[in-house]
Amino acid sequence: MIIDQESDQSIHRNYIVNTMIKTDIKPNIDSPFNLKVYLQEKKEIVEKALDDSLPIEKPEKIYEAMRYSLLAGGKRLRPILCLAVAELLGQTEDVAMPTACALEMIHTMSLIHDDLPAMDNDDYRRGRLTNHKVYGEDIAILAGDGLLAYAFEFVAIKTSCIPSERIVKVLAILGKAVGANGLVGGQVLDLECEGKADVTADTLSFIHRRKTGALLEACVSSGAVLAGASEDDLARLSVYAQNIGLAFQIVDDILDVTATSEELGKTAGKDISAQKATYPRIWGLDTSRQKAEELIKNAIAQLDIYGDKAQPLRAIAEYIINRKN
Amino acid sequence: MIIDQESDQSIHRNYIVNTMIKTDIKPNIDSPFNLKVYLQEKKEIVEKALDDSLPIEKPEKIYEAMRYSLLAGGKRLRPILCLAVAELLGQTEDVAMPTACALEMIHTMSLIHDDLPAMDNDDYRRGRLTNHKVYGEDIAILAGDGLLAYAFEFVAIKTSCIPSERIVKVLAILGKAVGANGLVGGQVLDLECEGKADVTADTLSFIHRRKTGALLEACVSSGAVLAGASEDDLARLSVYAQNIGLAFQIVDDILDVTATSEELGKTAGKDISAQKATYPRIWGLDTSRQKAEELIKNAIAQLDIYGDKAQPLRAIAEYIINRKN
Repeated sequence: MIIDQESDQSIHRNYIVNTMIKTDIKPNIDSPFNLKVYLQEKKEIVEKALDDSLPIEKPEKIYEAMRYSLLAGGKRLRPILCLAVAELLGQTEDVAMPTACALEMIHTMSLIHDDLPAMDNDDYRRGRLTNHKVYGEDIAILAGDGLLAYAFEFVAIKTSCIPSERIVKVLAILGKAVGANGLVGGQVLDLECEGKADVTADTLSFIHRRKTGALLEACVSSGAVLAGASEDDLARLSVYAQNIGLAFQIVDDILDVTATSEELGKTAGKDISAQKATYPRIWGLDTSRQKAEELIKNAIAQLDIYGDKAQPLRAIAEYIINRKN
Repeated sequence: MIIDQESDQSIHRNYIVNTMIKTDIKPNIDSPFNLKVYLQEKKEIVEKALDDSLPIEKPEKIYEAMRYSLLAGGKRLRPILCLAVAELLGQTEDVAMPTACALEMIHTMSLIHDDLPAMDNDDYRRGRLTNHKVYGEDIAILAGDGLLAYAFEFVAIKTSCIPSERIVKVLAILGKAVGANGLVGGQVLDLECEGKADVTADTLSFIHRRKTGALLEACVSSGAVLAGASEDDLARLSVYAQNIGLAFQIVDDILDVTATSEELGKTAGKDISAQKATYPRIWGLDTSRQKAEELIKNAIAQLDIYGDKAQPLRAIAEYIINRKN
């Protein structure tokens, strides 16, 4: 199961009120920065760009299938991360938007293929029928392939006003994030570990660094490259990304144990019933929480040098540990 | 069924001796240029580059699955086309090789996904078990995804000594060739037309311009872009590519009717038994042959301006119409 953190539950409530995961990292509710408003504004801009990115041509069916999943809602955390990093380092939203859209295309592809009967065999995603339940398995496979290919094409043809060297670097980052050393490799190892009782924390981290971490890191590093980041910026922001990626997964595992299905917007306790290796199973709940907190603290520490400009990234990190779904 | 023209039958025999398709375009057997030697030499170089392109890392299974199909033999016509065009226009083989390899990765991805049970459900490809029969459907889907993503990454990280603008253009060409307006779109329309009796020649050409034509054209145009081709060169070579692509498909349809399974290296008469729309069914055999000849003549005419330097491309065009499998 590739995690899709983009259900349509209230972000603000989860951000401000946290009862399920008790952490020392408290959301800064006195701050003038309003994450809810920020995320909502960015989401609307991204949604519009995604809608415009893929007009329906012939053969209509494949464009409709691609759009069905690409425009299925969600919080659009990945494109927003890319935009936030690019803007932190002085780049415009316009320059970063094609890459932001491409990241969402790639994420959507991974969800479509992951839901297939040969993989997780899920009938529902974000409360709607999965792609293959609507369009058939053949079209769902092709819709994923089409979105993946289009992600690269879109960045290549739509990114302007920056040196081509940066565009090539971004395309390399996207390719690596998806490939056998990224999403695909993580998914393979996850499939291999299914039902195994002896999965170590190292193996679990290996999986998640690839399954969710690689694309989150690509969001951050591509945004940085688009802005012409220095090596130091890139190094700091990569650490930020790796930390929030792993923390996100640990929190996800914790919520599977502690939250209700209603809170999650998906079936709770699924990992336990599937005898899946999770962090709470390996470390226990308390240690898992502690590790997640350490990761988020370390992520936020990377942002010190940027001062107030980094408020969106700081708030996103805090949101990840304080979320309830 | 995506056509895989890369079975391991003797090229030379088919090139020199042609009985099944009687054309006016005779292979120039007195020419000092030896296509068999040329293709064999290029194939060996491409095979070596492909082998080097994808070392096995962890998780081994996915790398093995990707390599199983990528290194399954064949004539490597697509990478060779790319190299031939790049060299025709003065570019070195080294500069063009990452793109040549990427084209084969993309072709291989399309074959792996096309063979899946949800698609054509084929158990054998090039005389070996298909990817999903060896590794399972889940791994086969992921191996295709991995190869597709890696194709873009490989071009982006391995192409050197040319301006980055050209690399970005090549990546755009590759993306377009695979996407909903290329391979994927052609495959969707092909699936939609299955079993339909009223498919027109226009629809059939729409399908094949995408299913086989788009990637063949990408081979030629990417090779040209890598060499810094002029607009005139690009226009001429695109016409060459479109013509050989469509001719290839027509010849394929003819061979399905006229050749034996032994000659084809795959089941003959498959199109008829599948009630598939083919050119012979729409135009009849004679007109189909005539159209294929016209396409090849037009393709070769595009090369006049390049003189002897274009011998490889000329010979490849002649081979396409004179082949027996």
